[in-house]
Amino acid sequence: MLKGHQSWLFKNRPVILSTGTVVGPDEGKGPLAADFDIVHDDLTVGQKSWEKAEKALLEEAAQRALAKAGLTDGQIQFYVGGDLMNQIISNTFAVRTLNMPYIGIFGACSTSMEGLALAAQLMDSGAANYVMAGTCSHNCTAEKQFRYPTEYGSQKPPTAQYTVTGAGVAVLGKSGDGPVVTAATIGRIVDMGITDPFNMGAAMAPAAVDTIQTHCRELERDPSYYDLIVTGDLAAVGTSIARELFEKHHFPIEQTTYSDCGLMIFDRETQTVQAGGSGCGCSATVTYGHLLKRIAAGELKRILVVATGALLSPLSFQQGESIPCIAHAVAIESGGVYV
Amino acid sequence: MLKGHQSWLFKNRPVILSTGTVVGPDEGKGPLAADFDIVHDDLTVGQKSWEKAEKALLEEAAQRALAKAGLTDGQIQFYVGGDLMNQIISNTFAVRTLNMPYIGIFGACSTSMEGLALAAQLMDSGAANYVMAGTCSHNCTAEKQFRYPTEYGSQKPPTAQYTVTGAGVAVLGKSGDGPVVTAATIGRIVDMGITDPFNMGAAMAPAAVDTIQTHCRELERDPSYYDLIVTGDLAAVGTSIARELFEKHHFPIEQTTYSDCGLMIFDRETQTVQAGGSGCGCSATVTYGHLLKRIAAGELKRILVVATGALLSPLSFQQGESIPCIAHAVAIESGGVYV
Repeated sequence: MLKGHQSWLFKNRPVILSTGTVVGPDEGKGPLAADFDIVHDDLTVGQKSWEKAEKALLEEAAQRALAKAGLTDGQIQFYVGGDLMNQIISNTFAVRTLNMPYIGIFGACSTSMEGLALAAQLMDSGAANYVMAGTCSHNCTAEKQFRYPTEYGSQKPPTAQYTVTGAGVAVLGKSGDGPVVTAATIGRIVDMGITDPFNMGAAMAPAAVDTIQTHCRELERDPSYYDLIVTGDLAAVGTSIARELFEKHHFPIEQTTYSDCGLMIFDRETQTVQAGGSGCGCSATVTYGHLLKRIAAGELKRILVVATGALLSPLSFQQGESIPCIAHAVAIESGGVYV
Repeated sequence: MLKGHQSWLFKNRPVILSTGTVVGPDEGKGPLAADFDIVHDDLTVGQKSWEKAEKALLEEAAQRALAKAGLTDGQIQFYVGGDLMNQIISNTFAVRTLNMPYIGIFGACSTSMEGLALAAQLMDSGAANYVMAGTCSHNCTAEKQFRYPTEYGSQKPPTAQYTVTGAGVAVLGKSGDGPVVTAATIGRIVDMGITDPFNMGAAMAPAAVDTIQTHCRELERDPSYYDLIVTGDLAAVGTSIARELFEKHHFPIEQTTYSDCGLMIFDRETQTVQAGGSGCGCSATVTYGHLLKRIAAGELKRILVVATGALLSPLSFQQGESIPCIAHAVAIESGGVYV
């Protein structure tokens, strides 16, 4: 049901029955490696192109999630997902394999929580019995499409971020063991005029702050309601700006632990990832792999995941447009045993 | 509520309070010209790039729909939409102007009904009071991105289709005068192995047939329930294939009138549009401009709009992949006076 202007309260508390997370070699060397279902030591995942590799990651994550939930693809009413690739081909070609009715979405790196929010809304309103939400990214497909040919090995400024190679999928059901989705806030586009595509964190931070503050206001929850508020991929630069904005707005973020998936997935001391991780796969694998395990272990009870997206295209950048950004928030709470 | 496996029955019958349709010069010379709100005689719409022109069409359509409904942008809870451009920039930049919470979607030319289906679902389940669904396409942005630089003037085979320059937007509310959305069916990906991007109609026809048959089966409605079943942009080649498939499957399409928006928007005798129209704007402008006016005039009572999408990217085509296709169906019925 609608709560406030742009938030949903899920009274039926749809359950995340299972998740699947598959990552690449860099993520496999990061601090969260043990929390992912599959770690590939080969960026090609045995495929002939980076794009086919990205699709393969998502197919594996989906199959793993289905197996854990004891479901077949035929039992899933709707797959909700998208990715960074033009025409979201990674999701489309994966869902061709999975053969599920398909709701394609695009929110750049915010796609993970846009999908989970919509999936939970469908579940909560009785529009589905089982929904799968998924997304993925691949460092080399993103570099190739958004930046430079990977063979160039071009240098990057320290504000740049390193796109995560990974796929994360969640299966939602009406009841069962697992954490529950209790609320979501759909973000607005916030554009502060930043035009540097190598500083996405700075561009996205105001959108994240806007969504977090709106969420807390509309749900009438203080930040202290959550044990953890985590943004998607603001990384070091964006997280720092977000903290400044919270302070400027007198928003009591200090009531809770605030962190960022882009800071959690890599070790910036030992890995060359500039400001930190990014990509649709970043918040998806950290949330579905790491954070839900911490909920299962009882270390966290309530978290708010705020996936952030920079909605530019190479063409809009070339035409001198600034970077419109968005953030979607989903509240996940402890609900029982988690697989 | 869920009906069957992949359909929704909207018991609360959300109302299409108003629509906005804006088209370019070719559509303004077609047989439906009088049904559109604004016809531009300049493909640039006074903008500096084709992309900015496409965005401007959508902004105009949205503003026109808001004005007709007597609403302001601040009253719309969610904008649901997308387009053909990489990273759906036309919708994103338009929604930056409109300042509404944004659910970005991608379904290629099926985006129109994917958006309307989701919008109606949000309305039906009480997740919103007002939702706007919108989409757009521009002949020159699509040519440039998917085919050849527009300056080439490259020749096309007769199976090719002509991307509509146009934007269509609908505003949904809980009650009021206007046609109502009564059901929707979310499509599956159907890929029959066709690899020719100049024959999209043939590639998409099986997906349209699959969705129409699934819709009728799950809603327990014969084709005769509808006065008109209209596909999105199969155009001449695809429509012919769809008719063959209905016959082969012994599906009684002859119980109703079956047509295609791609055949309606242009006059193929006098306009050089090869097999007919295509693009997100095709089904959106024909539905929101023409078909809803026919419902308002009492000429139609119940229609099923089945928007079709070819989910390829230039890259997937270059890598030898076939064209995955999808179709989403929305049932619209007479519900009162329509503006």
